[in-house]
Amino acid sequence: MERPRHQGMAKNTYMRWRLPLICLLWEVAMIVLFGVFVRFGPEADAHWEEEKREMNLTSDIENDFYFRYPSFQDVHVMIFVGFGFLMTFLKRYGFGAVGFNFLLAAFGIQWALLMQGWFHSFKSGKILIGVENLINADFCVGSVCIAFGAILGKTSPIQLLIMTLFQVTLFAVNEYILLNLLHVKDAGGSMTIHTFGAYFGLIVTRILYRPNLEQSKDKQGSVYHSDLFAMIGTLYLWMYWPSFNSAISEHGDAQHRAAINTYCSLAACVLTTVAFSSMLQKKGKLDMVHIQNATLAGGVAVGTSAEMMLTPYGSLIVGFICGIVSTVGYVYLTPFLESRLHIQDTCGIHNLHALPGLIGGIVGAITAAAATEDIYGKEGFIKAFDFTGTYQTRTPSVQGGFQAAGIVVSLVMALAGGALVGAILKLPLWGDAAAENCFEDGVYWEVPEDEESDAYHMHNPDKPASP
Amino acid sequence: MERPRHQGMAKNTYMRWRLPLICLLWEVAMIVLFGVFVRFGPEADAHWEEEKREMNLTSDIENDFYFRYPSFQDVHVMIFVGFGFLMTFLKRYGFGAVGFNFLLAAFGIQWALLMQGWFHSFKSGKILIGVENLINADFCVGSVCIAFGAILGKTSPIQLLIMTLFQVTLFAVNEYILLNLLHVKDAGGSMTIHTFGAYFGLIVTRILYRPNLEQSKDKQGSVYHSDLFAMIGTLYLWMYWPSFNSAISEHGDAQHRAAINTYCSLAACVLTTVAFSSMLQKKGKLDMVHIQNATLAGGVAVGTSAEMMLTPYGSLIVGFICGIVSTVGYVYLTPFLESRLHIQDTCGIHNLHALPGLIGGIVGAITAAAATEDIYGKEGFIKAFDFTGTYQTRTPSVQGGFQAAGIVVSLVMALAGGALVGAILKLPLWGDAAAENCFEDGVYWEVPEDEESDAYHMHNPDKPASP
Amino acid sequence: MERPRHQGMAKNTYMRWRLPLICLLWEVAMIVLFGVFVRFGPEADAHWEEEKREMNLTSDIENDFYFRYPSFQDVHVMIFVGFGFLMTFLKRYGFGAVGFNFLLAAFGIQWALLMQGWFHSFKSGKILIGVENLINADFCVGSVCIAFGAILGKTSPIQLLIMTLFQVTLFAVNEYILLNLLHVKDAGGSMTIHTFGAYFGLIVTRILYRPNLEQSKDKQGSVYHSDLFAMIGTLYLWMYWPSFNSAISEHGDAQHRAAINTYCSLAACVLTTVAFSSMLQKKGKLDMVHIQNATLAGGVAVGTSAEMMLTPYGSLIVGFICGIVSTVGYVYLTPFLESRLHIQDTCGIHNLHALPGLIGGIVGAITAAAATEDIYGKEGFIKAFDFTGTYQTRTPSVQGGFQAAGIVVSLVMALAGGALVGAILKLPLWGDAAAENCFEDGVYWEVPEDEESDAYHMHNPDKPASP
Repeated sequence: MERPRHQGMAKNTYMRWRLPLICLLWEVAMIVLFGVFVRFGPEADAHWEEEKREMNLTSDIENDFYFRYPSFQDVHVMIFVGFGFLMTFLKRYGFGAVGFNFLLAAFGIQWALLMQGWFHSFKSGKILIGVENLINADFCVGSVCIAFGAILGKTSPIQLLIMTLFQVTLFAVNEYILLNLLHVKDAGGSMTIHTFGAYFGLIVTRILYRPNLEQSKDKQGSVYHSDLFAMIGTLYLWMYWPSFNSAISEHGDAQHRAAINTYCSLAACVLTTVAFSSMLQKKGKLDMVHIQNATLAGGVAVGTSAEMMLTPYGSLIVGFICGIVSTVGYVYLTPFLESRLHIQDTCGIHNLHALPGLIGGIVGAITAAAATEDIYGKEGFIKAFDFTGTYQTRTPSVQGGFQAAGIVVSLVMALAGGALVGAILKLPLWGDAAAENCFEDGVYWEVPEDEESDAYHMHNPDKPASP
Repeated sequence: MERPRHQGMAKNTYMRWRLPLICLLWEVAMIVLFGVFVRFGPEADAHWEEEKREMNLTSDIENDFYFRYPSFQDVHVMIFVGFGFLMTFLKRYGFGAVGFNFLLAAFGIQWALLMQGWFHSFKSGKILIGVENLINADFCVGSVCIAFGAILGKTSPIQLLIMTLFQVTLFAVNEYILLNLLHVKDAGGSMTIHTFGAYFGLIVTRILYRPNLEQSKDKQGSVYHSDLFAMIGTLYLWMYWPSFNSAISEHGDAQHRAAINTYCSLAACVLTTVAFSSMLQKKGKLDMVHIQNATLAGGVAVGTSAEMMLTPYGSLIVGFICGIVSTVGYVYLTPFLESRLHIQDTCGIHNLHALPGLIGGIVGAITAAAATEDIYGKEGFIKAFDFTGTYQTRTPSVQGGFQAAGIVVSLVMALAGGALVGAILKLPLWGDAAAENCFEDGVYWEVPEDEESDAYHMHNPDKPASP
Repeated sequence: MERPRHQGMAKNTYMRWRLPLICLLWEVAMIVLFGVFVRFGPEADAHWEEEKREMNLTSDIENDFYFRYPSFQDVHVMIFVGFGFLMTFLKRYGFGAVGFNFLLAAFGIQWALLMQGWFHSFKSGKILIGVENLINADFCVGSVCIAFGAILGKTSPIQLLIMTLFQVTLFAVNEYILLNLLHVKDAGGSMTIHTFGAYFGLIVTRILYRPNLEQSKDKQGSVYHSDLFAMIGTLYLWMYWPSFNSAISEHGDAQHRAAINTYCSLAACVLTTVAFSSMLQKKGKLDMVHIQNATLAGGVAVGTSAEMMLTPYGSLIVGFICGIVSTVGYVYLTPFLESRLHIQDTCGIHNLHALPGLIGGIVGAITAAAATEDIYGKEGFIKAFDFTGTYQTRTPSVQGGFQAAGIVVSLVMALAGGALVGAILKLPLWGDAAAENCFEDGVYWEVPEDEESDAYHMHNPDKPASP
């Protein structure tokens, strides 16, 4: 599978030493850091019997594992199959989509366990992990998968690993600022995951702007079956999003409520996506790009508010709006961003994550500001916003203000971080492909020759057996 | 992707205003109705802390969310990935299969939450929803997905939305008659979902009979990879069916038992399907159509009885029989129905849902009639059939009679409802395609041109870059 | 789809009577045996209310169903979608991969419920089953799916059913020796499932050695989309492996810990697989075979030790090593085994299951031998290794010795059993294909003719409608 049209401006995409080196060194670093810092949390440790007695727990079912493990597995599927297959829509970049996503996420979750652990689970010199840490690591990596969508097909696996290292680090810092310093609620990550991840990726792709990308325009589309593979990703993201937004909410009603709100928002989003997909196309036909992506915007946009008393009809309204915003974005904004702002956004993450993420942050701020003891109940009110300790006297409207500040902080962190990382990735060291070889698996993968003479025409006895 | 063979009898399939209008108007209606009626149930409401105290619950794990959410997610996958991908077997209707199923199900679950809510969860003017409502909404939509199988490839998305609106409504009425008036047990929906959904769809397709459908015969088959996509649907339906049949059973032993019975029935069904698929083909080869569909009949046929003491060997017997009935149906009945009764059943739902659904209803009636206090235990007997209150004196044989009546009611509702809806869909307003354009995604979708010169032959340097 | 090149050495692959007969007879046997032996366990039986009272359980949530059902479903997906799709990588054997895997697993789980039931759940003449039995049946069948990988494409469905019958039987015997006689821990089955299954399959394929297999060499590769289908299998195995290794561990901390250890090991394994895949290829490109398979070795290799206090960094080390060992195996060992030892291992199970399985057994023995009351806590120590009753005085180092003995027993059982079964399968009765027809679905399946003129070129109006 030599690329015959490779010519001029040849770039060195030879990975043989660079990629193995970075993978092995970083994995060794992980082992050392895990060895020094990471231990089982009390609910996963063999001393749990003693812990149970101390906490007066009468049953093993009280172990957090049983509250969160099913949600964790759904989130895990979203990260690896959901994001991975969503990006297989390109006709010749399926290996890269699903394979590089696999690689960066597998590294990212390890680094996230450390980074988030130092900030949130650090006790007497050790990071104590349990199922909630695994979910949070997947969440953190989710923001990298989002950013990957903007640069899909245009970067080397080394660039992706470097981006993962930095983005996970900045994610953890941003998350710490929001959750601990601003005391903001963001269980489904409208701000920390989507807004941060998407604007981060958009800045990176802006800095890596490729003026000659139209040279690989013919490979930027889909083929019939690649669109079906992408629908696997879409559907798993859509179906499991209620688990995503509820995975780390408080036990009981909050998890329950987050799942219902998300389910409602996503359902409404499908209908407005279909409506606008048809309406904005001259012949009124549906566009798979919209169905694959904009239908998910409703999940993004209730990421902050799903665990609050948004109510089912509130969720429908949010989903309704986001299906429209996202589809309109694909039709008008993406071409504008590319031609005017030189932001080449392969998967259109601006429409699926950036805008709905911002909306999600705003909806969260409003929902928090509108909270009353009447709606939540006296105990429920305190529990929902964790108005205890230092925050005992915080009012809903103040909370709303802090929520809004969280959006701004996430945006600033994303823009600054994306600029820094984009600059690093621009160094001519990392083996990215020339413009005419973008969106082509053959650059980094052994690709089978699809001999149709063999695979498809065997029933034709006139043809010679093999060329 | 113009359809060059489009000629004569041209039909107007232009969706640009009709489809957006119906999607937007209906979604606005949903928002209004949800706003007036739908609120969180006590286990999803922020007042749950008070509720817990009143009900003397000591742990959040007692929230119904933890009993049913994993099953809900499995059911959700069955509806969207299971049914969606099962129907991708057609060579050029994969977008329609998975995309229209997505659309109708997303609308249907909202309408089902309302319809079922009014009948079953209506308290002081509000519908109070929780995870069980989400499962029931998915169940209700499942019956629409089944009916979709009969008309796959022959209807416009508008027709599908209209069918969904009416079918969900009638489903809820039928379900109310069975569960509340007849006090019938049907946790996995052999009667309410499968019998009702399948006969409904068969009548609709009968009324929409297309005499010239052989004009698109060449597109009614599969290609190699479309059959593999369909196997994704098959396997997810098959694997998660134990969750389907147990999802809304009573907590504890009933859920546990329903899962085991379904697992057993499905396992047996695979073997008889394979046996008869090979036996009924001249050369003894296996037919993918049977493997994709008839292997699932065992799940349908224990839909009523799975939560009863059917016992593992009883389940094996049911699965054994249904694999045979279903496969024989595909070979002999489907052609007969088409040629003699003018029932064009694209996916063969008569063999997968209608016949096994009827068998399931009958098996349920027999199992109920055969129940004794000895088999169930004194408490278990009352709990299993809810022989309390008004029904305190009902005997198993009377229950069996009511179960049988439930089958008849479901059939009558399906036939009458299907006839009504078929007549509505026959109106020349809804943009269905001409006979020669059936089973063709290009009618309603932007379809990528699969330029093989590009995608497949890039390794061939002799070929010109693009035509 | 006649196979035109079929010539010479023609073999009778006609299945019409043999396959149906074996399926129907065996299924009848299952029904009879289930009828005599299998009943619901106390937690699935309608007498559960009485049971609850006797056991002083206050809530239905204490039913084992809620501890294990989500893990069961994940394991179920691994067996049917995971293994099934992992093997679809061959360009023309997707139907056989996913379809035969479906058939053998559906039979195998029934026979496993009986065999394992007689050994482990036999009470007063009945086998009492619950969700844990379903998981164990899936586990047992997993070892058959592994062995199937070695002979993929070279055997008839009848041979596969016969192998399943014998292998399940021997699996149950081996498992009984290990778990009950040697009192060995092996929750994730490094020894019982992987070592046993892989060496069993390798011996079978050795005995079925086909000297002329290069005649079907052209079909032994993949095509672009078949590699993507295989990645569905890979990812589901990878994501759900934490559920696999924790599914039957003790409630509470052990399940929690097993999931975390497996998660860590798998993450590390991805990085070393990528590193060595690139390093061992001249051009430094990644090989899909490695990504599809070697990334999973980390899950295999913590199968014994995951529920122990292996610790997260210990898991990283195991995953690190196994990604290397497995990838190196694919590059160097598989060709060596084929050319020198005449072991034709279609899927390379030696690298994915055999070697990592052995490593897993050894890691388990070491981890057990290194256990102390300090690490586990007094109660945790006893609970983790079940040092009660007869085993009250067993020390960790003795346990380590028994663990090591378990590896040897599994190996011996696999080699002897594989030789026996291989000899039976070699009898010229079972309808396997000639060497030139291996890896070809057309032998046992009705295969659609992929008429590209129709499916792909419809937009070309010059072409005649159909040939």
